[in-house]
Amino acid sequence: MPGLFWVVPAAGVITVIFAALLARNVLNRPTGTPKMKEIGDIIFQGARAFLKRQYTTIAMYAAVIAIVIGVVVGLLTTPEEAVNIGVSQLGIGWRTSVAFLVGAFCSGLAGFIGMYIAVKSNVRCAAAAQRNLTEAVTVALRGGAVSGFLITALSLIGVTVIFFAYGGYSNPNIAPHLIVGFGFGASFVALFAQLGGGIYTKAADVGADLVGKVEAGIPEDDPRNPAVIADLVGDNVGDCAGRGADLFESTAAENIGAMILGIAAYLVTKNIAWILFPLGVRAFGMFASMIGIMFVRAKESENAMNALNRGYFIAIGLSIVGLAVTVHYMLDNWWLFLAGLMGILASVVIIYVTQFYTESRYNPVKSIANASKTGPATNIIMGLSVGFETTLATALIIGISLLLAFWFGEQSGVQGAGAFGTAVATMGMLMTCPYVLSMDTFGPITDNANGINEMAGAGPEVRKITDRLDAVGNTTKALTKGYAMVSAGLAAFLLFQAYIDRVNFLRPGNPMDSVNIARIEVFVGALLAAMIVFLFSSWAIKAVGKTASKIIEEVRRQFRADPEILNPKDPAHPHAPDYGKAVDITTRAGLREMIAPGLLPVLGPIVIGVIFRFIPGYDAAMVVAAVLMVGTIVGILMASFMNNGGGAWDNAKKMIEDGQLKDETGAVLGKKTFAHQAAVVGDTVGDPLKDTAGPSLHVLVKLLATITLVMSPLFIVAS
Amino acid sequence: MPGLFWVVPAAGVITVIFAALLARNVLNRPTGTPKMKEIGDIIFQGARAFLKRQYTTIAMYAAVIAIVIGVVVGLLTTPEEAVNIGVSQLGIGWRTSVAFLVGAFCSGLAGFIGMYIAVKSNVRCAAAAQRNLTEAVTVALRGGAVSGFLITALSLIGVTVIFFAYGGYSNPNIAPHLIVGFGFGASFVALFAQLGGGIYTKAADVGADLVGKVEAGIPEDDPRNPAVIADLVGDNVGDCAGRGADLFESTAAENIGAMILGIAAYLVTKNIAWILFPLGVRAFGMFASMIGIMFVRAKESENAMNALNRGYFIAIGLSIVGLAVTVHYMLDNWWLFLAGLMGILASVVIIYVTQFYTESRYNPVKSIANASKTGPATNIIMGLSVGFETTLATALIIGISLLLAFWFGEQSGVQGAGAFGTAVATMGMLMTCPYVLSMDTFGPITDNANGINEMAGAGPEVRKITDRLDAVGNTTKALTKGYAMVSAGLAAFLLFQAYIDRVNFLRPGNPMDSVNIARIEVFVGALLAAMIVFLFSSWAIKAVGKTASKIIEEVRRQFRADPEILNPKDPAHPHAPDYGKAVDITTRAGLREMIAPGLLPVLGPIVIGVIFRFIPGYDAAMVVAAVLMVGTIVGILMASFMNNGGGAWDNAKKMIEDGQLKDETGAVLGKKTFAHQAAVVGDTVGDPLKDTAGPSLHVLVKLLATITLVMSPLFIVAS
Repeated sequence: MPGLFWVVPAAGVITVIFAALLARNVLNRPTGTPKMKEIGDIIFQGARAFLKRQYTTIAMYAAVIAIVIGVVVGLLTTPEEAVNIGVSQLGIGWRTSVAFLVGAFCSGLAGFIGMYIAVKSNVRCAAAAQRNLTEAVTVALRGGAVSGFLITALSLIGVTVIFFAYGGYSNPNIAPHLIVGFGFGASFVALFAQLGGGIYTKAADVGADLVGKVEAGIPEDDPRNPAVIADLVGDNVGDCAGRGADLFESTAAENIGAMILGIAAYLVTKNIAWILFPLGVRAFGMFASMIGIMFVRAKESENAMNALNRGYFIAIGLSIVGLAVTVHYMLDNWWLFLAGLMGILASVVIIYVTQFYTESRYNPVKSIANASKTGPATNIIMGLSVGFETTLATALIIGISLLLAFWFGEQSGVQGAGAFGTAVATMGMLMTCPYVLSMDTFGPITDNANGINEMAGAGPEVRKITDRLDAVGNTTKALTKGYAMVSAGLAAFLLFQAYIDRVNFLRPGNPMDSVNIARIEVFVGALLAAMIVFLFSSWAIKAVGKTASKIIEEVRRQFRADPEILNPKDPAHPHAPDYGKAVDITTRAGLREMIAPGLLPVLGPIVIGVIFRFIPGYDAAMVVAAVLMVGTIVGILMASFMNNGGGAWDNAKKMIEDGQLKDETGAVLGKKTFAHQAAVVGDTVGDPLKDTAGPSLHVLVKLLATITLVMSPLFIVAS
Repeated sequence: MPGLFWVVPAAGVITVIFAALLARNVLNRPTGTPKMKEIGDIIFQGARAFLKRQYTTIAMYAAVIAIVIGVVVGLLTTPEEAVNIGVSQLGIGWRTSVAFLVGAFCSGLAGFIGMYIAVKSNVRCAAAAQRNLTEAVTVALRGGAVSGFLITALSLIGVTVIFFAYGGYSNPNIAPHLIVGFGFGASFVALFAQLGGGIYTKAADVGADLVGKVEAGIPEDDPRNPAVIADLVGDNVGDCAGRGADLFESTAAENIGAMILGIAAYLVTKNIAWILFPLGVRAFGMFASMIGIMFVRAKESENAMNALNRGYFIAIGLSIVGLAVTVHYMLDNWWLFLAGLMGILASVVIIYVTQFYTESRYNPVKSIANASKTGPATNIIMGLSVGFETTLATALIIGISLLLAFWFGEQSGVQGAGAFGTAVATMGMLMTCPYVLSMDTFGPITDNANGINEMAGAGPEVRKITDRLDAVGNTTKALTKGYAMVSAGLAAFLLFQAYIDRVNFLRPGNPMDSVNIARIEVFVGALLAAMIVFLFSSWAIKAVGKTASKIIEEVRRQFRADPEILNPKDPAHPHAPDYGKAVDITTRAGLREMIAPGLLPVLGPIVIGVIFRFIPGYDAAMVVAAVLMVGTIVGILMASFMNNGGGAWDNAKKMIEDGQLKDETGAVLGKKTFAHQAAVVGDTVGDPLKDTAGPSLHVLVKLLATITLVMSPLFIVAS
């Protein structure tokens, strides 16, 4: 065991204590007026009810998959391979199954933590905003940090424990192959959590806005709107629970992939540090992020984003130091430090790129706002154009980082080190993951705080504070998506290599020495993979549309059934709408619509692989490799389009609402103008792209990797 | 020379005579009232002025490229290769250059023919519609057929002549390599023609609609709108000239690629029929299409689409017979007949798929129309979803046809015959190309006839006839795009193989035996290729937006400068707007905006290939192969999304205008309702997708193939 390894358990324990202290700090704060507390409780009930049903559904599917995995992996592992691995066929099967279930459970837990802490922080942030900005920022960030740190600690501890439980100490070259199920479990749950939550939140948002703002003409988050609680619940189950599960699985899957890549160097050097290195780097990343968070102190007068950025750059700086220490003590190879540095640099560059495309200071958002002057059609056309264009920066960041990290890896002279270099880069990038996740959860917390204050009838002064925070939250959410996207891109290559290593491990007599896309079946596999990304996007956004239409019907029904909801005869005693009914309908419709898009990327690669496996002369394992690679390329670019395009549309609308758009004569084109209405259409179109399909695509990309890793025995013809 | 080869020159001559007879028949028909003739003349002037300027611009770029090609190919061909080819280095250079220029010239000529005949037919179709439907259909179809047949004959004759001019008789295994420049020239011009025309037509359309219909509240094609002539001109330069150039280059490039693939079998069998086979098949396709066209007789009472479909199925049936005859006499291998049959079947299936996604009888269009009830945002969301979903059918048709054609090819037992099987399938599919192109040009002719009748103040009875024809035209246009897309997909594999064959021909010592996407530089190349497709789409639709904004400014300026244009004091003598100014502005802006997106796919692969060529250890030729393959995959799927999504949006609007949408109470939601306004937004968003970016993507895909074929010496490190 390398001497430095103690930091891993230490980081795990300290992070949990840190998160507990933050949680106590947040929970001890006042919850505001009884009215606010009541609203907070209703949101909590709704979110819990949704997660409970969602997890019940997911658990059913997970149980089936666990059995399938056990049978497939157990039966298809040949006796020779079992001897090679040193575990019986049955043993390999159940171990993979159990790892899947543990990964799935931890992912679910991560989502629940994300939701729970966020809901509890919302109302406290709302109350803090009634005092001052600094305190509101502190509450929102600490609330976000609780889930950010708990989730990443859970991933670190989970991978470490299952690695050693499966004999990592005595057989470090075998254990990573046995724990691949953990990554698959994590991404399986993450996909459904992100999809289900994303459908819920955007359907509720779109539905509430269309009937409330557009048809009935009442403001956003108005308590007369029956869908308003569903909308607030949505932020918590979509953005918090969904993103929590997303980044949990990112860290877990990429960690395991990197460990598999380390085996090659271990076999040569017999130094277990090559396999444990990813855990060590992440431990240092925990500490760096913790210190960064503690440095965030918003000043009353400044843009809260600046305070968050300061903390982030401190975390980045410390991560570089931590990377150097880990590389020095564990690997003693400075080329690999440079590879890791590429990942950290990528996480800095993506910030500027995301800001360029989604902030109203720059040309892209301005061009969308300007296009709104000629109506919704030109707004949408320009937004599509901006969204497509963002793929240029995304592809360049990923492409250049990959090429350099690979080159540094090759220079290191280690066995199979080009791909290992990209793995180190990915680990470098993921060091600040806890910090980024904290910033991300900051977004929905302030969004909800804003909503709670609106519903509780807080004054304009308070709204101004939460409005400011809400705008910052939009930016942090966009940043996290950029971060998740680029890290998925960087990780792509390590995950491909892990898949190829695993195939070669399983069929040593017939190694896959190329993924030849010029073979007809491989080309067709690549074509189908690209198509799966389009089809998944189609179904995900259609699910939002269908669910939203259910909500719209229900809200219209309530308005018709009791006109006093909208126009009370006695304004002191308005008739309250039936929030629970709207929440219930959204929950049921959202979960139903989640199934088809969720199963597509799970079953798609398996069906393709199995069909090609039974056609003589075709190399199904190679086809699946191409599915993974081209699916990843198209998935990342599509996510770039959707996330950034959606963010740009959103902020073009905000820009007009802020009075920054003017006509030829210099007159301000603000709220309620033709241009503003056009921008609202663009924002609504962007919603399901940026909050449902886009973030789900990150998970889809990783799911393609983990599912092919786990299911690889299925695609290999026994030699 | 195989005995059957006489059909090729025969088909060329007979087709030209056939087209001339049709042209005389159309041109001899009456042009209607003097007013109509005058409008027709104005449109002709505008279209000719645009093409003249466009061709001047393109010619400049083409001249530069021709020189670059000559130098690159001449200098980079090693002396040993020159000996191998039997022509001096210089000779190879200038021959490729000249082939490029001839291809470019023919492509330009094809576009001009398409435009000229269409413009002359418009006004005659408008006049015929004042008599009856049958005659209007006849004029529109015959007008379309003139360009359809002339363009495909030009391609057949062009390829044949240049093949023999470059020594095809004595050295049939060398000549196809010398004529690759012809294909590149054709696709180079086609890309700019399609892009420039597409930008022009949609910018004029969107601009005219936004200021005319939305702001000023006047009907479509109203003579008071200064942009109305630009709009009519656009149909001719975009749909007719652009699509003509597109299909000219498709048939030429794919023909040449198939000839290169035939070399392998020729070298074994010494039978030149393997190389000439593609020409023979296409000759029979000409005859089949000719007979099909002659069978179209629309009945006054029936849907004109049925008449067109009857003719198409006759052409399909005769093509199958022709394929059997050609295979029997030239190759004598029935497996290859089955391969060709796959292509013909694909061209039948795509009809049903396109109709399913773009006709209001089926669910997709209905769902968009329904989503319009809740406004433009939900209309757009549903349209995006439908568009993305169409990739499923597109990928399956292409994937299954490719796999089967390849398998039939392999069974034939011929050298390298898997890929040759896909080439035969492509040739099979392209047999009906003249017919499809005739149907396609039918669309803009009827569209223009409709506009001319509106401007000339024809009565509602006449408008009803042209309206009906216009709707049929929308469907035929969508069908052609589906056809072009699937044929590009089928051709993909033959073009890849031609590229690989050519690389191996140029570096015999170091054959490319796989395109290994698991190599880092190859993966990054694939990522960049996918990005180029997104970026190209971004720039193409942004170009429409920018050009449209210029038109909008000009129309607003004219309305402000002379209020009597809109509201004449003396209705008998209205002030005519300055149509010429609007045409001129559109022309200039459209051509300026065409440059950036046009150069992107030309320079992109070259820059990527050259950069990677100079990095030691990288295989640039393999990177470029991946650029070609993944660019093709993403390009085709993106085109499927854009073409079909745009068509669905268009017909959802038409469905509402036809009164087919009802609310819960059963009341019709027709023109001018909230739902209709929402559908108009969707239609406008779909316009640049389906008529600018989408069709240009077909050309882009082929251009990637021809440019990499011609430029391949650039990517090969001298061994």
